[in-house]
Amino acid sequence: MAATRPTMKDVAAEAGVSTMTVSRVVNGDSAVAPRTAARVEAAVRKLGYQRDDVARQLRRTHQLSQIIGLLVDDVTDPFMAAVASAAEDVARQRGSIMLIGSSRADPRREREVIAAFTARRVDGLILTPAAGSHRFLRPAQAQGTKIVCVDRAAPGLDVDAVVVDNFGAVRAAVAQLVTHGHRRIGYLGDTPKIWTFGERRRGYLAALRAAGIAADPALVRDGVRTGPEAAAAVTGMLALPDPPTALLAGNELLAFGALTTAPGDLAFVAFDDFALAARLTPPVTVIAQDPVALATSAAHLLFARIHGDVSPPRTVVMPTRLIRRGSGELPGPFAA
Amino acid sequence: MAATRPTMKDVAAEAGVSTMTVSRVVNGDSAVAPRTAARVEAAVRKLGYQRDDVARQLRRTHQLSQIIGLLVDDVTDPFMAAVASAAEDVARQRGSIMLIGSSRADPRREREVIAAFTARRVDGLILTPAAGSHRFLRPAQAQGTKIVCVDRAAPGLDVDAVVVDNFGAVRAAVAQLVTHGHRRIGYLGDTPKIWTFGERRRGYLAALRAAGIAADPALVRDGVRTGPEAAAAVTGMLALPDPPTALLAGNELLAFGALTTAPGDLAFVAFDDFALAARLTPPVTVIAQDPVALATSAAHLLFARIHGDVSPPRTVVMPTRLIRRGSGELPGPFAA
Repeated sequence: MAATRPTMKDVAAEAGVSTMTVSRVVNGDSAVAPRTAARVEAAVRKLGYQRDDVARQLRRTHQLSQIIGLLVDDVTDPFMAAVASAAEDVARQRGSIMLIGSSRADPRREREVIAAFTARRVDGLILTPAAGSHRFLRPAQAQGTKIVCVDRAAPGLDVDAVVVDNFGAVRAAVAQLVTHGHRRIGYLGDTPKIWTFGERRRGYLAALRAAGIAADPALVRDGVRTGPEAAAAVTGMLALPDPPTALLAGNELLAFGALTTAPGDLAFVAFDDFALAARLTPPVTVIAQDPVALATSAAHLLFARIHGDVSPPRTVVMPTRLIRRGSGELPGPFAA
Repeated sequence: MAATRPTMKDVAAEAGVSTMTVSRVVNGDSAVAPRTAARVEAAVRKLGYQRDDVARQLRRTHQLSQIIGLLVDDVTDPFMAAVASAAEDVARQRGSIMLIGSSRADPRREREVIAAFTARRVDGLILTPAAGSHRFLRPAQAQGTKIVCVDRAAPGLDVDAVVVDNFGAVRAAVAQLVTHGHRRIGYLGDTPKIWTFGERRRGYLAALRAAGIAADPALVRDGVRTGPEAAAAVTGMLALPDPPTALLAGNELLAFGALTTAPGDLAFVAFDDFALAARLTPPVTVIAQDPVALATSAAHLLFARIHGDVSPPRTVVMPTRLIRRGSGELPGPFAA
């Protein structure tokens, strides 16, 4: 009998209370009178009682909805599609299913989607946050909904995030364009209020600054969201008296749009690799990241949180790779 | 007072029963004693009582989970991503949220995903069915889960489907390749057990037959699923003693793979339009369909079913368009 672990029942008998009361005390429920709690604690110490955390975890798991929610900007963005596919794979491995919703980069729509998800008691959320503060998620978080960001940090919210070094990657790519003799370098991005685009824009400006090139507002286009908008922005830049000789497109959709009008002699770097990049003339130099690795890591972090990981929030930074295919290495007018 | 519609209360007073009993009788609940039911029915007739179907529908809507499930092959296929995005938009308009799951073309995984969805009591399913019979869905259907197929019919299941004329579209495209002087025409597709690929393959064979060309098994590659597999298949065909002079790729992913290795003088037609098709050398001729229109139509059909449309299942066929950009119009060795 000495080898048998004491149970909650033993503690209750020792303290002269119900097992419910013991349960409340060991789970930190403040509804128990201090005197009773002290008696239970004494019994716990005397018997060497330990909570059965495995059984507890099983009960907890049983109460989970086993539904997670994924919020993307737009799943027709190939980067987001890869994120969705990888997140669903992890959810499936973990016995959960996945809701998907799109913000379309609209903070109001984002809030509505998230509210609809939390109303269905999702265990957790994987977010590619839209622009602006995400303080509005704090109540959901306080009520136990786990949140992990992927691709972007969420300003105003203290949660895990899995991202790449957008700033450093763009700074290096633009620095390379400068090295190849370019000084008039255009930039296309969505609003810098979206964390990722803010970082990419900062990287662009830092590279220019480091090279002693004054940024020309006519060459910096923010808030570009669709392929046709990107194409129009490029057409506009090329019509300038002093047009750019190089261009950085902030994501795949913008690159596709820009490439429909950009002439072949415009040096070009795109953020995100894409299927036909090597097949274009000239082949397209890209900053590649791995959306599957980002999303897989984010989803595993989320399930760790759902299953009780209470360590402080962390930011995981994954590598990028500049793939030099030719378009980013076209010489500019100041080439040595 | 004569103009006021009688209420359930009036019927209850007339029959000398509770409104609950009236409700049970008018809703066909068999738990009411026949004698009581007869008294209620007499009161209904006498007062000319009619059920308030609007209120009833509201109550019914209230019992819905307001969750639909979308099953795709793989959301990284741009066609499927467009389907997912459009279906979510309709779900949102209709006050529902959407689960997403991928079959990865694996019928077993498909069943598991659908079982997980129906266990969460989805109101309905939008499916791009994997290969094989879908009879297994009949019990879910009998229990009230509404099902609509998009892109593909589901053999063995009598449900609504929104598709294009895959057979006719491919037959016309291959007939055009023949007209331009090609007789050695390759075909790349996934398994013909997937309805869409079965139809496309049939269209290819029908065009060859109509032109008096014997199909060469070495030029017909089924079960090709990824870009790298498509690239390898093309490399294999081009190494034949009598290689093809033209090629039809059965979807966008296969086209991307094929285009990484296909030489520029190989006539080429792809099923599905894609962002950079016009930018390649030569520009790529495609069979375009409209995934947004297909999915929007399918989702609206699904919500009509969820909200009580019990008309016989229908198949909606949407148009395709052959966009001649150059690669499909390259002359072959038998050009006039």
